[in-house]
Amino acid sequence: MKVDNSSITKKIGRPPGTLIHVGKYNNEKTKISTIDYNNDNLEIVNHQTIEDCFNYKNTSSVTWINISGLNDAESLKKLGAHYDLHPLLLEDVLNTNHRPKKETFDEYIFLTLKMIGISPDGYSIITEQVSFVLGNNWLISFQEREGDLFDDLRLRLKENKGIIRKQKSDYLLYSLVDTIVDNYYLVLEHFSDKILELEENVINHPDQNTLHNIQKLKKLLINYRKSVIPLREALLSLQKEDSKLIHSKTKRYISDVYEHVIYIIDGIETQRDMLSTIMDLYLSGISNNMNQVMKVLTIISTIFIPLTFIAGVYGMNFQFMPELSIKWAYPLVWTVMVGITVGMIIYFKKKKWL
Amino acid sequence: MKVDNSSITKKIGRPPGTLIHVGKYNNEKTKISTIDYNNDNLEIVNHQTIEDCFNYKNTSSVTWINISGLNDAESLKKLGAHYDLHPLLLEDVLNTNHRPKKETFDEYIFLTLKMIGISPDGYSIITEQVSFVLGNNWLISFQEREGDLFDDLRLRLKENKGIIRKQKSDYLLYSLVDTIVDNYYLVLEHFSDKILELEENVINHPDQNTLHNIQKLKKLLINYRKSVIPLREALLSLQKEDSKLIHSKTKRYISDVYEHVIYIIDGIETQRDMLSTIMDLYLSGISNNMNQVMKVLTIISTIFIPLTFIAGVYGMNFQFMPELSIKWAYPLVWTVMVGITVGMIIYFKKKKWL
Amino acid sequence: MKVDNSSITKKIGRPPGTLIHVGKYNNEKTKISTIDYNNDNLEIVNHQTIEDCFNYKNTSSVTWINISGLNDAESLKKLGAHYDLHPLLLEDVLNTNHRPKKETFDEYIFLTLKMIGISPDGYSIITEQVSFVLGNNWLISFQEREGDLFDDLRLRLKENKGIIRKQKSDYLLYSLVDTIVDNYYLVLEHFSDKILELEENVINHPDQNTLHNIQKLKKLLINYRKSVIPLREALLSLQKEDSKLIHSKTKRYISDVYEHVIYIIDGIETQRDMLSTIMDLYLSGISNNMNQVMKVLTIISTIFIPLTFIAGVYGMNFQFMPELSIKWAYPLVWTVMVGITVGMIIYFKKKKWL
Amino acid sequence: MKVDNSSITKKIGRPPGTLIHVGKYNNEKTKISTIDYNNDNLEIVNHQTIEDCFNYKNTSSVTWINISGLNDAESLKKLGAHYDLHPLLLEDVLNTNHRPKKETFDEYIFLTLKMIGISPDGYSIITEQVSFVLGNNWLISFQEREGDLFDDLRLRLKENKGIIRKQKSDYLLYSLVDTIVDNYYLVLEHFSDKILELEENVINHPDQNTLHNIQKLKKLLINYRKSVIPLREALLSLQKEDSKLIHSKTKRYISDVYEHVIYIIDGIETQRDMLSTIMDLYLSGISNNMNQVMKVLTIISTIFIPLTFIAGVYGMNFQFMPELSIKWAYPLVWTVMVGITVGMIIYFKKKKWL
Amino acid sequence: MKVDNSSITKKIGRPPGTLIHVGKYNNEKTKISTIDYNNDNLEIVNHQTIEDCFNYKNTSSVTWINISGLNDAESLKKLGAHYDLHPLLLEDVLNTNHRPKKETFDEYIFLTLKMIGISPDGYSIITEQVSFVLGNNWLISFQEREGDLFDDLRLRLKENKGIIRKQKSDYLLYSLVDTIVDNYYLVLEHFSDKILELEENVINHPDQNTLHNIQKLKKLLINYRKSVIPLREALLSLQKEDSKLIHSKTKRYISDVYEHVIYIIDGIETQRDMLSTIMDLYLSGISNNMNQVMKVLTIISTIFIPLTFIAGVYGMNFQFMPELSIKWAYPLVWTVMVGITVGMIIYFKKKKWL
Repeated sequence: MKVDNSSITKKIGRPPGTLIHVGKYNNEKTKISTIDYNNDNLEIVNHQTIEDCFNYKNTSSVTWINISGLNDAESLKKLGAHYDLHPLLLEDVLNTNHRPKKETFDEYIFLTLKMIGISPDGYSIITEQVSFVLGNNWLISFQEREGDLFDDLRLRLKENKGIIRKQKSDYLLYSLVDTIVDNYYLVLEHFSDKILELEENVINHPDQNTLHNIQKLKKLLINYRKSVIPLREALLSLQKEDSKLIHSKTKRYISDVYEHVIYIIDGIETQRDMLSTIMDLYLSGISNNMNQVMKVLTIISTIFIPLTFIAGVYGMNFQFMPELSIKWAYPLVWTVMVGITVGMIIYFKKKKWL
Repeated sequence: MKVDNSSITKKIGRPPGTLIHVGKYNNEKTKISTIDYNNDNLEIVNHQTIEDCFNYKNTSSVTWINISGLNDAESLKKLGAHYDLHPLLLEDVLNTNHRPKKETFDEYIFLTLKMIGISPDGYSIITEQVSFVLGNNWLISFQEREGDLFDDLRLRLKENKGIIRKQKSDYLLYSLVDTIVDNYYLVLEHFSDKILELEENVINHPDQNTLHNIQKLKKLLINYRKSVIPLREALLSLQKEDSKLIHSKTKRYISDVYEHVIYIIDGIETQRDMLSTIMDLYLSGISNNMNQVMKVLTIISTIFIPLTFIAGVYGMNFQFMPELSIKWAYPLVWTVMVGITVGMIIYFKKKKWL
Repeated sequence: MKVDNSSITKKIGRPPGTLIHVGKYNNEKTKISTIDYNNDNLEIVNHQTIEDCFNYKNTSSVTWINISGLNDAESLKKLGAHYDLHPLLLEDVLNTNHRPKKETFDEYIFLTLKMIGISPDGYSIITEQVSFVLGNNWLISFQEREGDLFDDLRLRLKENKGIIRKQKSDYLLYSLVDTIVDNYYLVLEHFSDKILELEENVINHPDQNTLHNIQKLKKLLINYRKSVIPLREALLSLQKEDSKLIHSKTKRYISDVYEHVIYIIDGIETQRDMLSTIMDLYLSGISNNMNQVMKVLTIISTIFIPLTFIAGVYGMNFQFMPELSIKWAYPLVWTVMVGITVGMIIYFKKKKWL
Repeated sequence: MKVDNSSITKKIGRPPGTLIHVGKYNNEKTKISTIDYNNDNLEIVNHQTIEDCFNYKNTSSVTWINISGLNDAESLKKLGAHYDLHPLLLEDVLNTNHRPKKETFDEYIFLTLKMIGISPDGYSIITEQVSFVLGNNWLISFQEREGDLFDDLRLRLKENKGIIRKQKSDYLLYSLVDTIVDNYYLVLEHFSDKILELEENVINHPDQNTLHNIQKLKKLLINYRKSVIPLREALLSLQKEDSKLIHSKTKRYISDVYEHVIYIIDGIETQRDMLSTIMDLYLSGISNNMNQVMKVLTIISTIFIPLTFIAGVYGMNFQFMPELSIKWAYPLVWTVMVGITVGMIIYFKKKKWL
Repeated sequence: MKVDNSSITKKIGRPPGTLIHVGKYNNEKTKISTIDYNNDNLEIVNHQTIEDCFNYKNTSSVTWINISGLNDAESLKKLGAHYDLHPLLLEDVLNTNHRPKKETFDEYIFLTLKMIGISPDGYSIITEQVSFVLGNNWLISFQEREGDLFDDLRLRLKENKGIIRKQKSDYLLYSLVDTIVDNYYLVLEHFSDKILELEENVINHPDQNTLHNIQKLKKLLINYRKSVIPLREALLSLQKEDSKLIHSKTKRYISDVYEHVIYIIDGIETQRDMLSTIMDLYLSGISNNMNQVMKVLTIISTIFIPLTFIAGVYGMNFQFMPELSIKWAYPLVWTVMVGITVGMIIYFKKKKWL
């Protein structure tokens, strides 16, 4: 059965807890892999069926089950049954339109957030929802599709770098979230670059295109912010978590990620302020430009219209116009006209209109 | 007695607790139907008189009494007396200008909120107030008129789909509220579509009509927001409810609806930001357009005015104008005039005015 | 002694608790009337001197003493002494520039708020301060002048309608406040009507006058809001009052008034949003109009200026202008000029400038 | 040693607690005067040296030591030593750039706030910092210069008016603060008048000057607000003070001042709203005016340009122009020209452009 | 190994606690110096290796270890190990993109903030991160580069001025922070001067450059604010610190710095308001100027266009134009034209258009 997965509306009317994947990546094959480790040993396995990872539940080593691709609702259901996951939790995993949030259950903690990347053209962001269920000695992560930011982390696990192999599953969760949040900096820096670029554009050659880019960036920031703001609350709540699943030592680390998020939110606010400053600059630059053009054009007209009037006067056909027969009248008229022109230009210059 | 029902002002001066229906649908016939169920049996009855539903009060099965049409104040009074409802509660049910709210009484919980739909032309929203009274094993719902969003739910009840038949009346309340809130997504998506449409319009062919549509949408969002924001508080309070009427397991579900509402409020805020971005685009587009037109028109005048002056000069009737009798003077003047024109055009192009 | 009563500045430098009436109505005669009732009896008396109402203090029936006109500071002082009112309380009663507030004393509760009406021309609001002192079995109300909104209530008392005669003085206070707040709806609806009217005006024939009306309404809303916002806090605090003077059953009613006030504040916010939307519409409509006019005018000039140039060319007096002697030159010139005109019109139409 | 006293920068690098006067009034001679009173006696003394007021510290009568002029740091140091004042407290007294604040020490309470007046030209405010130290039976006040608002109060003390002589030093503090806050009303009313004046100006004859006055008033309000807002917190904290220095009866009075401050802050907010409304009016009025002028001017041009073209046509020198020799051609051309003019005027009137 | 140090992105993917310096000053040599003092003795030492300062840890005298230049991660690691510093603390020290914050550990308190200076051209700010670790009797400070604001403080220590030598390390921390915050005033005053300058510019000769300076200043304020706002929270938290490391007497001093920061934040907000007021003034001034120019130019055209038309009329070549042969027709036409001109000028003056 093939349906349009991206709209949440298809869920309307279904009983709560119905497992339907709502999201963009509806052709992703579900892949399951497990990393099981303690300080001495590490085992990496790719599973064919969901049942293969069930027996890791009660081992004393830390088990990280990673599931990418969310279309195989059946398997997830089985997983949920085995790990005793609440039906609404699984619904939250599958509904990728969810806000980042943290929720505490009796036996595990649920955390969902967004991985954020920049599209190749630089003017849209790609978000992918990642959800974590942290249990005692195990962690399950759900990703919308294959490929993630965690390869460095896997390497650290494999090569036993840092203290990660000596820690429990809560530290693993921290490491994963930290990696995702670190990546937010890339997005922020990308925006920073774009804003600098736009600022230069606005000062040197503002055009309608610049305006559209400002607006696009504004929209991006609005969307980016929407993903980051709720994460702040989620992390704060994780840090204040009273469960035995989060060790007090790990909280110090989580508080560190929390501060990164605060820093990023600060950055977003600053960038919004910058963008509206640039917008002001753009609008005022455009209007200033236009004004300059209109002023020069109007001045040209203003100089020639009186001259044309003088020429018109001596183009009249009255029989009795004494000036017409005066020999030096013609050069005199020219002199007068040049004089008027020069006078007006001087006047305009003095008034700083020119 | 026929009165204008839509204005709250007709209530002024009456003693509190006076039951007068304040709302748009003042010709709706009051209809009463009951669904009584437990996991094994289900009974659906449409009642002729309000007294028919009184004997369901103390059954151990769950009873859902649905009342649509609020003009029969007499029946409601009787119902209130039988179910011991506070007079102000009934007043709140009948006054359809009420903000969504939740209120706890000794024997029941009262919740009132809005069903929201989109009018056929897409530029106004239709709101209908729905109120719920949740008692022990019973739930009374009040709707302004016949026809609602609950048909899917009734089917689920009838066919015993999901867990609803195994749960108590609090779960029924949750299911009803969930259905209403799910429908809010439709409205949000409708707005989303309209905004995309408007954005395209603004970029491709902005006109006064676009502006009016932006403003209409803005007004819709203001009104929509007004219905949703208080619901957040109501649901939060329901979730924190300490009464035995709401089981702790159901709270998890209510918290889920609560998050949907938060998500929708986020969406509304984003859409407001988008709309003002579009408004900015529109205004700057319009002004840019206008500027282009005026610039071109002014440039045309600016080119011809000096030429006209030259023609004027040689139209003067001085007797002594040596140029007039020179044979190649006329073509020379043409050359000069063409030269001026070309020079100005080049100058304007170089200045990027053209 | 006759002084300008409307300015608070005349109080500067006086010792605190000095009783000086600060307000607009400084010629109002002070009138005192009492309604004393229980479920069985009701007595209405108009008093000549303040001392006449003193013996109602310790009766077991409920006594409502209403004082309108605040210029007789002497009488108020005596009343204060008899009922043991704090000097600053009386000062608050007399200073009609006060924000709505509620204050609890040992033996009574003090509440001051505003009655709000619309002036006949519809573009200003009339506020009158009403203060209440709620004691055990008695309630004193202070009004700035004779004539109020409570006639319906007095009738209900007299005819023993509703439950009011069965209740204590706290319910009386609630009924009075409720009446005042109900009247706020009238003001809100009045604003609603004005806004609709303005919106129509703005779309159909916007002029400078519309703008002034928008601004006037804005100012009215600012002032209206200023009277209503503090009332919310006052009522919230009344509702949470821990004193034995407010019975728990009455609190449910007060919470109802509180919700009306919230609803009104919501309405004010919505109307402010609407007004700025209308303002935007107005400004953009005006500017659009102006742009249309200028465009058309400029186009007319732009069409004729080249034509005038051509006519100017053949008005030159060169002796050797071969075209002049050609027979069909004149009609040809006309043809060219018509051609240019048509060409420009087509061009402008194609560009959607016309 | 003479230094520029107005800048706080001269304090940088000094050890904390260094007593340097930072303020505008650096030539004020320090004057010390004492009022010592109880209900029966009152003594007023002007002291030559600071030591003269030391022996009032432990009397049972209330002592008010007033010090005006803050340049004699030596004397203040001695005073501080005798009354056991914290060095940072004295620093706060001398640094007149301080925000209003209240601070509780073991033996006394410190309160600093601003006296605010209007400069003669009405477009700047004069602030003077006043600090109070409230001890048991004594109160020290520090003013930046001689001359204050307390003469009425001194008279009341001398003549034993009101209850002030019967109260302790906390009531004296209240009376002083009350006097200062009452004076804020004058400033607020002054602003009110200015705003009304500006509004009238804007409607009747707006010019660049009006704009400057709006901006000046805006700046004044910003500065005024800055002095009043922190006072709210200070008074709230004073009211909640748990020290034995503030009697519970006095708190009722302080709460009264607190409400005055709230009222003033409300007023400031309203005035800010009003000012931006006036600003909008001004801008739209100016632009409307300009538009009217340009429209009329453009219409004049637009009418004459076609006429000039016609005249130009018959100024051409073609040999074969049949119209030229027709007898009634000239009047006919005039007729046509008048017709065009009238037609255009009618058209413009119909279009409401004229 | 030489890398671009300024971007935080290079940290992505590394295990948490990895010590990499992120900042602008990546060539600074790490310098270590120690001041060890009590009331009687003071010793100042510059160390070659980090180990040299290790033996100060447990002395009873106060030890201030100052480290400037953060590129020698190895030494910092050793220091961290010796003083038992949390790896994330050292990471925060090295990552100079950090927000100001305060953090309490078991044995020490960590505080990081920014020193802020003005660049020579006055239109950018220079920030340098300074971090403090306050232990029992010791304080370690980390600076990004050599050269700081603390020379006055060192002198005070050396010469035993003030009370600093009598106090513990918490007072030293206070003194350092106080020095940094005092310097913020300089920045604020610099902004103040710039704003006054801009305001004068805007009134006297506004140009595009003024606009750019307004925008630059706006950006500076945004960045400045970003550094100061979080410091408020950090200091508040320091003041409420419950640790034995901060003596209650010192808290009074910290509260003093806290108030300075509040004052500075107030100042920033005021300056933002001022800047937008100046921006408004600028925009309205520019547009007013432009309007004046266009009006005058348009008026000149408007006067001459009808005159040109009259001249055109009598330039027509009709054979039968009776006026042409009238003797006084030519002077009469001049009279008419002068009359029209004068009339129009009077009219425009009366309308206040000129």
